[in-house]
Order: sequence, then structure tokens, then C-alpha cells
Amino acid sequence: MVSIQELMQGATGADAKLMRGFASRAAGFRPSPVRDVFEVSMRPGIISLAGGNPDLELLPLEELGQMASKIIAEEGLEVLQYGSGAGLEELAELVCDFMESEGSRPRPEEVQLTAGSQMGLDLVTKLFTDPGDVILTEGPTYTGALGVFEGYEVEVQQVQMDDAGLDPAAVESRIRELEAEGKRVKFLYTIPNYQNPTGVTLADDRRAELVRVCREHDVVVVEDNPYGQLGFDGQHHRSLHSYDPDSVIYLGSFSKIFSPGVRVGWMIAPPRVRKFLQIAAEAVTICPSVLSQRLVLGFMREGMWESHTQRTAQLYRRRCEAVLAACERHMPAGTHWTVPEGGFFTWLTLPEGGRHPDAAEALPAAIDAGVVFVPGTAFYDDAAAHAAGRAPEVPTGAVNLRLAYSNGEPETLAEGVRRLASVL
Amino acid sequence: MVSIQELMQGATGADAKLMRGFASRAAGFRPSPVRDVFEVSMRPGIISLAGGNPDLELLPLEELGQMASKIIAEEGLEVLQYGSGAGLEELAELVCDFMESEGSRPRPEEVQLTAGSQMGLDLVTKLFTDPGDVILTEGPTYTGALGVFEGYEVEVQQVQMDDAGLDPAAVESRIRELEAEGKRVKFLYTIPNYQNPTGVTLADDRRAELVRVCREHDVVVVEDNPYGQLGFDGQHHRSLHSYDPDSVIYLGSFSKIFSPGVRVGWMIAPPRVRKFLQIAAEAVTICPSVLSQRLVLGFMREGMWESHTQRTAQLYRRRCEAVLAACERHMPAGTHWTVPEGGFFTWLTLPEGGRHPDAAEALPAAIDAGVVFVPGTAFYDDAAAHAAGRAPEVPTGAVNLRLAYSNGEPETLAEGVRRLASVL
Repeated sequence: MVSIQELMQGATGADAKLMRGFASRAAGFRPSPVRDVFEVSMRPGIISLAGGNPDLELLPLEELGQMASKIIAEEGLEVLQYGSGAGLEELAELVCDFMESEGSRPRPEEVQLTAGSQMGLDLVTKLFTDPGDVILTEGPTYTGALGVFEGYEVEVQQVQMDDAGLDPAAVESRIRELEAEGKRVKFLYTIPNYQNPTGVTLADDRRAELVRVCREHDVVVVEDNPYGQLGFDGQHHRSLHSYDPDSVIYLGSFSKIFSPGVRVGWMIAPPRVRKFLQIAAEAVTICPSVLSQRLVLGFMREGMWESHTQRTAQLYRRRCEAVLAACERHMPAGTHWTVPEGGFFTWLTLPEGGRHPDAAEALPAAIDAGVVFVPGTAFYDDAAAHAAGRAPEVPTGAVNLRLAYSNGEPETLAEGVRRLASVL
Repeated sequence: MVSIQELMQGATGADAKLMRGFASRAAGFRPSPVRDVFEVSMRPGIISLAGGNPDLELLPLEELGQMASKIIAEEGLEVLQYGSGAGLEELAELVCDFMESEGSRPRPEEVQLTAGSQMGLDLVTKLFTDPGDVILTEGPTYTGALGVFEGYEVEVQQVQMDDAGLDPAAVESRIRELEAEGKRVKFLYTIPNYQNPTGVTLADDRRAELVRVCREHDVVVVEDNPYGQLGFDGQHHRSLHSYDPDSVIYLGSFSKIFSPGVRVGWMIAPPRVRKFLQIAAEAVTICPSVLSQRLVLGFMREGMWESHTQRTAQLYRRRCEAVLAACERHMPAGTHWTVPEGGFFTWLTLPEGGRHPDAAEALPAAIDAGVVFVPGTAFYDDAAAHAAGRAPEVPTGAVNLRLAYSNGEPETLAEGVRRLASVL
């Protein structure tokens, strides 16, 4: 993994000259550790538990191709042209209907379409945070979110979860501590369902309270829900947004129920805040790809997504079961792992006194053994980990591993776990 | 046009509460004045000289649809999946070949694909500017660029052009003034060919000198070239990038030679700086739409773009001629307009002592007469215009109008000019 420091220090010639003009935020840029591991996972013979890509094998490609052909031939003058900065109106309406399955009832003027929900996260960070502001996240959290936050020079504070997700009381006491230090906590970033990287789901009976705590302290809740439709039991949890649409900004994604390659997501915010998000979005992309939005609309409107999502969720369930069974069989005594009810990931905690006290150190041996994973440190904020005077009991992810089961046959994944266990 | 101030002040309820948490940069957000005028231009009976959209009528839609169908059916597992954060390698290679027509010879590792060249501008601003830094632009300049810059809380300094574009001596003396004030000039943003909004082209014999002046003062040149292939004579000007790839970052677009609706652009920078741009890009969109990139690759590789671009450029030429002839016939004595050699726009300057000293004031009357345009003030930085102690001789665009001829038949456009002249 090449760090920003290495990138900056090794520069010569034109690069070095230009870099002298870099903004101070560039020092906070964070190359994706997950992407680095992806490259290893492409090597022949390697079994990847690093992944995180949805499985697209069940998509009706012929049908989708025909749909695209018809759309371009008949509506090409619209879908190949610039479109509305807010996104396609029909797609915004569809999003409103879609969100009823989670108990939310947004109106179209609250919907902002984006070039993927990652962009939604960038926009909300841009709109709400000045350098030095605090963002709360789960500990651990999605590495791509850390990449966004660090680029805005904010302070990331990670609150540990238990097996039922964030504890509202722990969140409140952290907010109080930060307020007492005179800090401004702008928002809580949370992935309530089948979280990345832990697979943990926020208990339903904590949801109202978590929203209440944040509202009381004027902390916006930014709810990221890419995996919400991928529950193994086919049920949907109520969104945090449904508890209080006035204080929760919701990020939605079509990447896991249709396709990440078209880059379409959405966000929900009160109408005037949404207008600001639109202005910020237009400054970056003018509009989301109109063709992509139209394809998503077709896929969703034809109802193709429902059977596709149900079938892929069952695929993921079988793979998850295979991985957990293999952990049971092969992992050293004392290893702990989460038991996901949906999504792509399980999260391992190594036992004390094992061969590798730091999972990242085990990665080269794992690769030699033919398996790759993402070390837990990738899901913790670097700055926090290195902060002087940090209490040693605060987790940094060193004893953790994220295992992804979204790609690969059950037997292959189980073999990957066996190889991994052999080096741990 | 709703201003940010109006959006902020009129807020109630949930909006008002959330807005209290906005970052300071939000006050600099700038709703697109061009987009506002677009809405008017959709009214029945209105002739739009506001436009700026490319004409897509000549695109081979049936063929493109078939190509899309084949790509999705045969390569769906790749093009609907996440892709490389740098973009498709084959498309980067194609960009390198493409840029030879402008005298540049970049290598693939210098190419960053983006979700449109607007995103390239956002990335370069994010990477290079801290609040308070100075960006130089042409006066007037692309309103979407001002929207980006104002969101980063930088100071925009606009240097007036003459009929041959920016005068390198004027740029150098402005840089010297700013340096003397202790300011840090980070980059010059310039659209050298068929500029938006003026239609003016930077003289070839000024190009090397402009690059030299900037390099000498450690000012990066950000060259935005969306219209470069749309010269009426079919010729290409040498890019600024070709004079010094070490100090010029180039922004390219497929929007005007293929389709804006797919949202694909590119940027060229030295390899390590490009890597930073990639990290910044991944934080916003993870990757550009893979499907969109693949469609662009198909369109470009099959050579469809060359005949398409040649034919549309001739379309624009005829429309331009019609607009200029109508100006000659109908505009009040003393009105001045530029004579574009390509692109989409001409720039009018009203005579002194006319009916409307401020073009924006003439807009309602023009709409009543059935024509719409974009007032010149949209292309100047507000903050600069309102700065206390500003010399009254410094232009603010009040006496200017941008007329776009990229959409509409020649007779319709000429009738639009006639209507406009009737209220001026």
C-alpha cells in the first residue's frame, strides 16, 4: 500500500514542482487500501476474501442489452444530452416508492440523484463540514468514507459497536465529551444494515433512540444503506430516516441491487438542503449520467430488480454460511467472528497470544498461502490511531480482518478460509 | 435566479435547523445562472440563444443502440461492475492518440478519466487550492468554473481578453501585482479555443509565451478544451499542454464530440500528480461509469466521431453565420460582437447610451418578445464585482450578452436575434 507520504516524498521533476502548490488537504488524501488488495486478488490461484464487489452473474444481460438499445434508438436525443442537475424526475419518483419498503415516505423534491452514493457522501461532507469539525462514525467503518472525510480535514471520532451496532448511550456520551472540549460535531455517519466491514446490523430497538440522541445534540445523522435490500431473510429494517426525516440525510445506492458500473445513487434531504446538495453536485458533475439513470429506471420499473435482488441475496446467504462454517472448522481457538444477517462481510477478531498480533503482518503469509483479505486497520482512521496520548485500549483494527463472501463459490470461499487459518 | 442568500434566508423548519450546521463554503455556492435561463427556454414559442447544449441530431442512434446492446450482452460482467479508479486503460490509450492532433503526446499513466471534464476542474481545484488562494481566469469565463472556484473559497481574478484572447503581458503584470500583495496564485484557468462565453480563440503566437509566463511564476496552467475539435475550418490549434506538459494540466471532454449525457471526460497531468487526482476522484465517484467509458471507447474506436464532429462543426458554422448576419442587420449601431472561428458562442457588447445600460435588465423584455439569452454578468465573479474600492472601469459583464447558436435552425436563430434587437 503506497502511502500519501511516500507519494509526496518520492516525487521528482514536474511532479515535485507541481506538488509544491498542493492544498493542505492533499496531505489527508488516502489511497484506498481495499483497492490495493484487489490487485493482488487478480493473481492466478489467489482466493479473494477481500472483494466487496456485488455478484452480477444473475443479471439478465441479454434483456438489459436490448433495453439499452431501445432506449438509445428511441430516446437518444434525451439520454445522451445534458440532463437535470437533480436527476431524472421519474427516477426520483421511483426512489420515493422504493423507500416505502423501509418505512420512509420522501417526496420527489427531497431526492437528489448522484453519480453513486459515494458522491452523496462527498457532497454532504462538503456541505456540512469545515476543517476541524468532528464527524462520528462507527468503529470500524467503510474505508471509502474515511477517504472522503480525511480529504476535508475533519476530525473523525469512531464509536465502537457491539453485536447490535452502535449503542445510543455510547454515542451520546462521546458527543458530550466532544462538546465539553468545545468541538463541533457535525454528523454521525452510520451504515445501519449489514455494515461494512463488520456485517453487524443496528438493532431495531436502538434506532429511534439513536436518532433522538443525535437530534437533541444538533448532530445530523447520515444514513448510508447500500446493503439494506440484501437481508438473508428477505426482510427490511426500518430506515433511520423513517424515524425523523428532518434530521437524517439518507444515502441510497443502486450498486448492490443492480449495477455499480453505471454509477447511480441517490440522497434524501429536506427540500432546501437538497437544493444546496444539487448546487454542489452540479459543480462536480453537472448532472448524473442520463443514460445510466435511464437504464436504472428501466431495470427498476420493469420489476427486474426484485427477483434479481432476492436471488442474489440467497446466493450471498449460502456463501456466508460456507465461510462461517469454515471459520468454525479451521480458525484457531478463541477467534471471534460476526454472524451477518445480510450483506457481504464478516469481521474476525484474532485471539490474544496468537501467531500474528497484527493481522496486517499476516497478509504476506496469507498471500503466499493463496488467499487475500483486508486488514482491520483499513477501517480505522489513521490520524486517530496515531494521536499522541491515545489510550492503548482504544481499538485500531490491528487484531481484525474483514472477510468478504460476495464473490466466489461456497467451496472456494471455504478453501480460502482454510488457507487463511493455516497462517493465523 | 434564486441566490444563495435567498435560499439561506427563506429557510424554515428542518431546512433552517440543518442549515445552521452548514460549512462556511456553502455561502459561496453558486446556482448556475445558465440553468435558470434554460427553464425559460423550454417555454413554447421562446427562441433560445441561451443554450450551450451540443446538437445530437446527427448521432447514429440506431448504430449506437446496437453497439450498447452488444457491449452489455457480451461484456456486461465487466461494464456493469466497478472499474479502475483511473478509468479504462484502452480509453486512456485512445486519449493519448487523440491528443496528437493538438501536438500533445501524453502517456497513459498521465491520463485520468473522469465523470465529465467539469469533475476534472473540481479535482484540480481541490488538489491545488486552499481558501484564500488566487485563481486567474479569463474575463469573462465559463460560469460553471466560477461555481467550482467559489465553493472552494478562493479569490478569483479575471484578466480581460482582446480579440486574440489573453495577453501574456497582462497576465504577467496581474501575477506580479498579486505577488506584491503577498497572494498565492495557484493556477490560471483558461479555455484557449472558441472560448465560453466569448467565442474568442487564443492566438497561436501567444501560446508559448503564456505558458512561459505562468511557468516562470510557478502558476499552473489549467487548460480546458471542450470545443477544440469544433473549428469551422477543420483545423486544430496546438494545445497549451503541448508547449510544456510539465506545467499544464489539460481537461478534455467527450461531451461535444460525442455525448454529454454519458458524462465522460479526461485530464492529463504528470504521473504522480495524476495519482493524487485519482485518489481524489475515487473519494467522489469510486470510478467513472464503466458502461459510459466503454460506449465512448466504441464510438471513438469505430471512428464514428470523426465524421460526426466534422458534420456538426459545419452545422454550427452555418448557424453562427446566420446569427452574425442577423446581428449585422438588426442590432443597434455601436453594438459589438465577436466573430468565432468555432464552438458555440458569440459575445455581444452593447453600445453606450442604449436603452438598457445593463443587459440583465433587458432579459424580461426579451423573454416577452420571445427570445432568451444569458446576461454577461453570469460570467464574472460576484465577489470581485462587489469588492469595495473596485475601480469602475473594471468590466463586470453588465453591458454584455452571450448568444449561443449550437441549437436551432439558422432562420430560427436569426429570428431570435431580430427579437432581441427589438428590445435593445
